Amino acid sequence: MSDKILVGIVMGSESDLEIMRKAAHTLKNLGISYEVKISSAHRLPEITMEYAKTARERGLEVIIAGAGMAAHLAGAIAAHTTLPVIGVPLKSGELNGLDALYSTVQMPPGIPVATVAINGAANAAFLAAEILSINHPEAERSLSEYREGMKKKLIEKNEGLEI
Amino acid sequence: MSDKILVGIVMGSESDLEIMRKAAHTLKNLGISYEVKISSAHRLPEITMEYAKTARERGLEVIIAGAGMAAHLAGAIAAHTTLPVIGVPLKSGELNGLDALYSTVQMPPGIPVATVAINGAANAAFLAAEILSINHPEAERSLSEYREGMKKKLIEKNEGLEI
Amino acid sequence: MSDKILVGIVMGSESDLEIMRKAAHTLKNLGISYEVKISSAHRLPEITMEYAKTARERGLEVIIAGAGMAAHLAGAIAAHTTLPVIGVPLKSGELNGLDALYSTVQMPPGIPVATVAINGAANAAFLAAEILSINHPEAERSLSEYREGMKKKLIEKNEGLEI
Amino acid sequence: MSDKILVGIVMGSESDLEIMRKAAHTLKNLGISYEVKISSAHRLPEITMEYAKTARERGLEVIIAGAGMAAHLAGAIAAHTTLPVIGVPLKSGELNGLDALYSTVQMPPGIPVATVAINGAANAAFLAAEILSINHPEAERSLSEYREGMKKKLIEKNEGLEI
Amino acid sequence: MSDKILVGIVMGSESDLEIMRKAAHTLKNLGISYEVKISSAHRLPEITMEYAKTARERGLEVIIAGAGMAAHLAGAIAAHTTLPVIGVPLKSGELNGLDALYSTVQMPPGIPVATVAINGAANAAFLAAEILSINHPEAERSLSEYREGMKKKLIEKNEGLEI
Amino acid sequence: MSDKILVGIVMGSESDLEIMRKAAHTLKNLGISYEVKISSAHRLPEITMEYAKTARERGLEVIIAGAGMAAHLAGAIAAHTTLPVIGVPLKSGELNGLDALYSTVQMPPGIPVATVAINGAANAAFLAAEILSINHPEAERSLSEYREGMKKKLIEKNEGLEI
Amino acid sequence: MSDKILVGIVMGSESDLEIMRKAAHTLKNLGISYEVKISSAHRLPEITMEYAKTARERGLEVIIAGAGMAAHLAGAIAAHTTLPVIGVPLKSGELNGLDALYSTVQMPPGIPVATVAINGAANAAFLAAEILSINHPEAERSLSEYREGMKKKLIEKNEGLEI
Amino acid sequence: MSDKILVGIVMGSESDLEIMRKAAHTLKNLGISYEVKISSAHRLPEITMEYAKTARERGLEVIIAGAGMAAHLAGAIAAHTTLPVIGVPLKSGELNGLDALYSTVQMPPGIPVATVAINGAANAAFLAAEILSINHPEAERSLSEYREGMKKKLIEKNEGLEI
Repeated sequence: MSDKILVGIVMGSESDLEIMRKAAHTLKNLGISYEVKISSAHRLPEITMEYAKTARERGLEVIIAGAGMAAHLAGAIAAHTTLPVIGVPLKSGELNGLDALYSTVQMPPGIPVATVAINGAANAAFLAAEILSINHPEAERSLSEYREGMKKKLIEKNEGLEI
Repeated sequence: MSDKILVGIVMGSESDLEIMRKAAHTLKNLGISYEVKISSAHRLPEITMEYAKTARERGLEVIIAGAGMAAHLAGAIAAHTTLPVIGVPLKSGELNGLDALYSTVQMPPGIPVATVAINGAANAAFLAAEILSINHPEAERSLSEYREGMKKKLIEKNEGLEI
Repeated sequence: MSDKILVGIVMGSESDLEIMRKAAHTLKNLGISYEVKISSAHRLPEITMEYAKTARERGLEVIIAGAGMAAHLAGAIAAHTTLPVIGVPLKSGELNGLDALYSTVQMPPGIPVATVAINGAANAAFLAAEILSINHPEAERSLSEYREGMKKKLIEKNEGLEI
Repeated sequence: MSDKILVGIVMGSESDLEIMRKAAHTLKNLGISYEVKISSAHRLPEITMEYAKTARERGLEVIIAGAGMAAHLAGAIAAHTTLPVIGVPLKSGELNGLDALYSTVQMPPGIPVATVAINGAANAAFLAAEILSINHPEAERSLSEYREGMKKKLIEKNEGLEI
Repeated sequence: MSDKILVGIVMGSESDLEIMRKAAHTLKNLGISYEVKISSAHRLPEITMEYAKTARERGLEVIIAGAGMAAHLAGAIAAHTTLPVIGVPLKSGELNGLDALYSTVQMPPGIPVATVAINGAANAAFLAAEILSINHPEAERSLSEYREGMKKKLIEKNEGLEI
Repeated sequence: MSDKILVGIVMGSESDLEIMRKAAHTLKNLGISYEVKISSAHRLPEITMEYAKTARERGLEVIIAGAGMAAHLAGAIAAHTTLPVIGVPLKSGELNGLDALYSTVQMPPGIPVATVAINGAANAAFLAAEILSINHPEAERSLSEYREGMKKKLIEKNEGLEI
Repeated sequence: MSDKILVGIVMGSESDLEIMRKAAHTLKNLGISYEVKISSAHRLPEITMEYAKTARERGLEVIIAGAGMAAHLAGAIAAHTTLPVIGVPLKSGELNGLDALYSTVQMPPGIPVATVAINGAANAAFLAAEILSINHPEAERSLSEYREGMKKKLIEKNEGLEI
Repeated sequence: MSDKILVGIVMGSESDLEIMRKAAHTLKNLGISYEVKISSAHRLPEITMEYAKTARERGLEVIIAGAGMAAHLAGAIAAHTTLPVIGVPLKSGELNGLDALYSTVQMPPGIPVATVAINGAANAAFLAAEILSINHPEAERSLSEYREGMKKKLIEKNEGLEI
């Protein structure tokens, strides 16, 4: 996959960096290049729209969007591109992220958002890698290696396990 | 208020008409002129944006937006105007309108949506009338008359009440 | 708008000040005069009623009411005035403010409350400013400036963004 | 208890009669006199207040209040009397009565509402009878007889039970 | 009311004392005598049953029961007495007390529990006092004085209020 | 297992038969003998207690209890026996069975209830059979056969599947 | 894309066909070949595992899995392939599909499921098409055409709109 | 029961040990032998399957499985054995364990999971002991002794209780 930027990570505010950083780090570990942008469906709607509209021609293949509360960001991006958009509902405000989950996943027919768990930024990156794996064998290899490592680690936890 | 259109009623799909019609009828009963438009935050984002951006110069003073599920419409309009935007969360899909309520009311700082009850289209119209009443004495009169009538009717219900 | 008090901020108890203060500060930043009052739908019902009934003649144009739990304050005020009433559901007690959200937003036909997010006191002020902006051009200017500033700040966050 | 009216049944709208009728019928079966009134915390606030304020001097000993959605009625009555107020959260609107339950039960310190199940009008009457039973032995007898009958009926259901 | 014990306060475990203590203190402040007991619907069912069955003959007029999680205590007591039983759903476990609220309030016809807010132990005491106030004028006086004091305090909060 | 009655099915009211019948039919299909009883934690507490206390000596090995709303039945039985008690939360009332689920599953330490899905009466029977299968090889055989049949049927659904 | 089967649609039971059919029809309309299979995470675990393990080598690029209640199907498939798996939470049972939504979307790190709305089978197909569109220009064309058509239809709804 | 291992405790990740340890300690106190294993429905599906398939022949009589979020572990084990499987929904992630509760309890017909309270690991052990008590009189004795001790302790709490 060389250094071509394939994944765009967008989030609604600077405070979302704490969680969304995990998406970036996971992609880095999997050897996938990405870019990060702070935008907002409500405070920077034109820039968000422009970002989405030009994403495919700029070479992006997947967009990850994280937002909290009435989390419209992923949907606003999805409205302007036919690339797959992954939504990360973020916990902020008082409803444990349930508001963000509903606002992200309950999209109307025609404009889907691929939603992961509340605060599930790492899984958004894994999902992006799975999507890329269809045509990027290196991504598939990274994922398979990651899973093998995960299994080994989990098996090792059982050695000497005392309770 | 003569015939000047002061309120714009926007909804995300034709199927929302069943509920949103109550907003129109309530405004009509209060003697307030309005226009109705079907648009969508996700399927017609540019037209929605244009509608919001030109609303004030076209003379609108309040916008009522009704949408269901991940109801982004009111927020998408609010992002493009400093006019007050009233959101009506509509029940559609499987979550009783709770998804629409959260998606409408949990707006981030700076871009509020004045949210009414789930399927509360009539109350959206009453709220619009209250907002107009600040500078349109006729609206205030209509509201006061409505409330008086409401009181009378409720009092009359007690006559001959048998249970 | 000179110094005329246009917005009344009411809250159910002293402990609500922590959150409701944001409404006052936001109005101050927007150059809008306001008054603050602690009242209660249940513990001071007559004073609350009197406050609502005289609000319009005292020159208020919008009332913001914040309350927690079975948050009846905004509705109790709305019952006694045709001015627009903005409700801020406050998180207190054990239900994350969901009780206050339902108690504030699910108003019956005829007596609406313009509800904002749980603990959304700042947005209540922005919404009040939007309502005032219809006839107070200075309020519109303040809001537009605020939004421009908000956009700039958000764009600047992207400079030198490292993750 | 003779014919003295001891219980006031209040409800927010005529449509609540369908459920609230069960409270009246249960009281009748227990031999307890009552009166029924349609009032509303939001649409008839002064009449509601007056009703609550004069309840004790008029001889009422318990008030039952049923309301739906942002169900403020029981709380509004409780604010104006130190008599026990029983709240029946009614299912109306789209949230299965959960909004009414929260709006009824989550009262702030000092002004309690004795809340029963959603649509639990019959139990509101049983609770009123239990309260009356402290000083009205006939009420206690009626309740004990009712319970005995209930037990017998339930035991009989087991005879010849086939499944 | 002299020193006669009129209210029984029962709770499911020692850890409930932290919250239920407020019921005791509130009763003390209102001049109402009470007794406190730790019992459990599940761990001491016979003792709980016996307590309920003998409550009226021992002179109790109201029972307050506090429990968390699948809070059966109030219902288990209500099954064995026709005295009014007030249930306090306690927050314990992971569901914010919502489990206890549902388990306390959703009682089947015939066996009501007068439910107050989650952790609303003080209000359980106020409700008990209201019930007693029907035939104990001193309780009515205590409640009226308390409300007057509450009003004064709340009004004073407005003096010199700065925000 | 011959004809010895090993499973007791108890339910809170006759109206629960509609759902609880599935538990009986499933047991019958698996060749397990059972008895059915209508009892109630609140309306027939002594009979319920007696039933639970004598269950083991009467030869029962598992008890299945179904109840709705504030579903205390399974817990009330569990309090009086150390036999495994399976709780079926039934949908009745207005909360979709969520109240019954919480009231059944959120039991305090020491008195567990083995909870199955809302209205999951059939699965209560399968769970009873699994428990019996530890020492009743016929039950294990019945379950294995059932699973094999289930697999076959599901595989056959794919033949000629058109969509 | 010729006739090569690129998408596998799996569902947990025959009764899911009613909703999942929309995924198939949407793919057909977009000109994308697919296969349909009824399997189950719990009743046919080995076949489900085998299906997932061989999916990539058989040429599948995306898998859509629909299931209700404790909807483990999408997760069980995702555990055995690094292809992107789209989960459709289905409404069945008594919790409006909320149980299926949580069971589908709240996946642990490393094994994501791309979740769409409750009963959102059509959107699962659109999301699959978006994923395919990265490397299948025909899919991108189909999606763009669909969106254009959707916009036109929505705009036409406004002509002659009367309310 | 000598030292034969009768109960298998499985959990999805090392971090679950904090809660699941209570299951082990409770079994130890009851004199029941057990084994502990970290496995995962999604990360170690084959090992989980193997563990379940061989459980009965290895002498296990009950399996306890604890997992959080989209908690599929108990269900995945139940799919491969006809032994009774007890599920402990663990609180992890942002939804207070409600996601795990739904994912554990809402199992489809034929494959039940005996679900206990969120984080109810101790009760899972008590339930396992109750299941074992059918044929292991020592387990019954341990449970009865535990209950007696629990009662005594609770009764003693009332001595010298001051509030």
